[in-house]
Amino acid sequence: MKNGIYDQVKKALSGFNVLEMGGIPPNPEYMVLLKAIEIVKTENVTFLLAVGGGSVIDGTKFISAAALYDGDSPWDLVTKQVPIMKGMPFGTVLTLPATGSEMNSGSVVTRKDTKEKLAFGGPGLFPQFSILDPQVIASIPQNQIANGLADAFVHVMEQYVTYPADAMLNDRFSEGIMQTLIEVAPHIMKDPTNYKAASNFMWSCTMALNGLIQKGAPADWAIHNMGHELTMLFGIDHARTLAIITKSHYTYNLDSKKEKLAQFAERVWGVTNGTVEEKALAAIDKIEAFFHSLGIKTKLSDYTDKYEGTAEYIANQFVERGWKGMGEKRSLTPNDVAKIVKMAY
Amino acid sequence: MKNGIYDQVKKALSGFNVLEMGGIPPNPEYMVLLKAIEIVKTENVTFLLAVGGGSVIDGTKFISAAALYDGDSPWDLVTKQVPIMKGMPFGTVLTLPATGSEMNSGSVVTRKDTKEKLAFGGPGLFPQFSILDPQVIASIPQNQIANGLADAFVHVMEQYVTYPADAMLNDRFSEGIMQTLIEVAPHIMKDPTNYKAASNFMWSCTMALNGLIQKGAPADWAIHNMGHELTMLFGIDHARTLAIITKSHYTYNLDSKKEKLAQFAERVWGVTNGTVEEKALAAIDKIEAFFHSLGIKTKLSDYTDKYEGTAEYIANQFVERGWKGMGEKRSLTPNDVAKIVKMAY
Repeated sequence: MKNGIYDQVKKALSGFNVLEMGGIPPNPEYMVLLKAIEIVKTENVTFLLAVGGGSVIDGTKFISAAALYDGDSPWDLVTKQVPIMKGMPFGTVLTLPATGSEMNSGSVVTRKDTKEKLAFGGPGLFPQFSILDPQVIASIPQNQIANGLADAFVHVMEQYVTYPADAMLNDRFSEGIMQTLIEVAPHIMKDPTNYKAASNFMWSCTMALNGLIQKGAPADWAIHNMGHELTMLFGIDHARTLAIITKSHYTYNLDSKKEKLAQFAERVWGVTNGTVEEKALAAIDKIEAFFHSLGIKTKLSDYTDKYEGTAEYIANQFVERGWKGMGEKRSLTPNDVAKIVKMAY
Repeated sequence: MKNGIYDQVKKALSGFNVLEMGGIPPNPEYMVLLKAIEIVKTENVTFLLAVGGGSVIDGTKFISAAALYDGDSPWDLVTKQVPIMKGMPFGTVLTLPATGSEMNSGSVVTRKDTKEKLAFGGPGLFPQFSILDPQVIASIPQNQIANGLADAFVHVMEQYVTYPADAMLNDRFSEGIMQTLIEVAPHIMKDPTNYKAASNFMWSCTMALNGLIQKGAPADWAIHNMGHELTMLFGIDHARTLAIITKSHYTYNLDSKKEKLAQFAERVWGVTNGTVEEKALAAIDKIEAFFHSLGIKTKLSDYTDKYEGTAEYIANQFVERGWKGMGEKRSLTPNDVAKIVKMAY
């Protein structure tokens, strides 16, 4: 790897009995992870070290959980949605700021044969340690830096653009992370060796999804739920699927989200004029403009010509897996989902 | 206790073998703590539960450290300034939001016979758990609520009003805590049963000193160093000693702190006009006005007539204990300390 991390890690591990396994792809794939689990069991591995971005860390979490699982199929860990209380201990060396997986106990894994991209996790899946060196950002391609900025930004929005919940300090923290991401974005996009921008970008990504801003506050995650389906269907980068869904989701749900969107407009974007609804709409436009400033397109048709039928297909996928409601109040219906996705064509 | 906490705790502990000890005073006193340590040793206590405010929790941390200490005198734990790596496990039930001790590993203890009020701590002194119920605030006297607001506010300032250090996200978090304290202050002072104000006040106090905003940033703590001496000399409440020192400390050190004070003025107090120095001075006035709005006086002469000679005495106390420098760059001299304290008369 041109960032030099591989050599650094090898050197740090000299003297230990180390087995290497590469090839965990973006959207960590179940079949690849199964191979890793087999190696862990046959070779009596006792500690895992994830060196990579969110996909590698998420995949390692799955391996960690599966290594100590006694049931029939490791996929149960994902589908049963039971919190994972114990996993094989693991550490992480983060090479791509974005997902926050380095400081949380959640994971998203993908299964191509069933077209599933699903989240799981539990208190047993926190890393023992994570090493974050902002200098790794210097070797990340610009489109992936853009993805990281957008991903972290949406992580915060999913925990902030809800109904007002009196979590005044959490709101300030969320706004602070978003302000920092907005402020560092042009600098880190232009010059990834800018240490000030790189370090604040990296720390913002971690704080966006380590549980801090979630304390005592509701969370939406509908954008992620829908976005995951777009990745499964079209192979679109995770962060870009979020950018595709955001505007239509917030526009469609304006009524229940307008107070927080207006506060967002005022505090983060400095919008001072207009009614609550006008400010909320201004926030939605500002968010879209931020994605565009990162070179991220925000319509599904920007990524594929074959978008017809996507809305109905996705809504039906959720129904087939057992509809549990969606959004911070679990009040969205499959019909709502279809409309939101269609608005994003 | 009229807050009902005592009964709640007793009920929760029914079935356990519990020894009670009350009487830890504000500024936990060494001689009282020694008695507790003796009981812990003779009765084979294995777990400590601090039910109270910062003084009770800090005192419990000292007991925790001393219970496992083999040396000659437990006071060594304080004077040797060696990080405490292991303590007897303890939990906390917080009854007075202010110090943040419920989520950090630091402690300040007092020894009347030698007129010392000193900090110590280490990774072995984190609580196993802390219970924070904002409803306890309803029974706290108004002057103690004011103390808690001022204490937490100065905790943030000590980690923020330094030289600029490129910690962009930490700055935003610090500003968010201070904004929240400013916003809740009039509400919680007026009506301590206001749950929204109480919960955000309590959470702000914890986040002000749990290490979060300290990551990758410099810290001053000179206000605390000088304030502790005022408590030892005159018995002034801890928070009020901080309010006494703040204005003169920031005015005296304006040159090295003006950039952060100006940022403070802009982002927290909405000051938009003026030079950096004018904004910095505006911030200092705003801080003083905030203390006054809490009914907290900001001159030493507001608390005692016997202030003559205090400045020289305090400077000399630090010299006698071994001068290590003071302030975020350790650049203040004993002469600087004397001048700052004198400005606060």
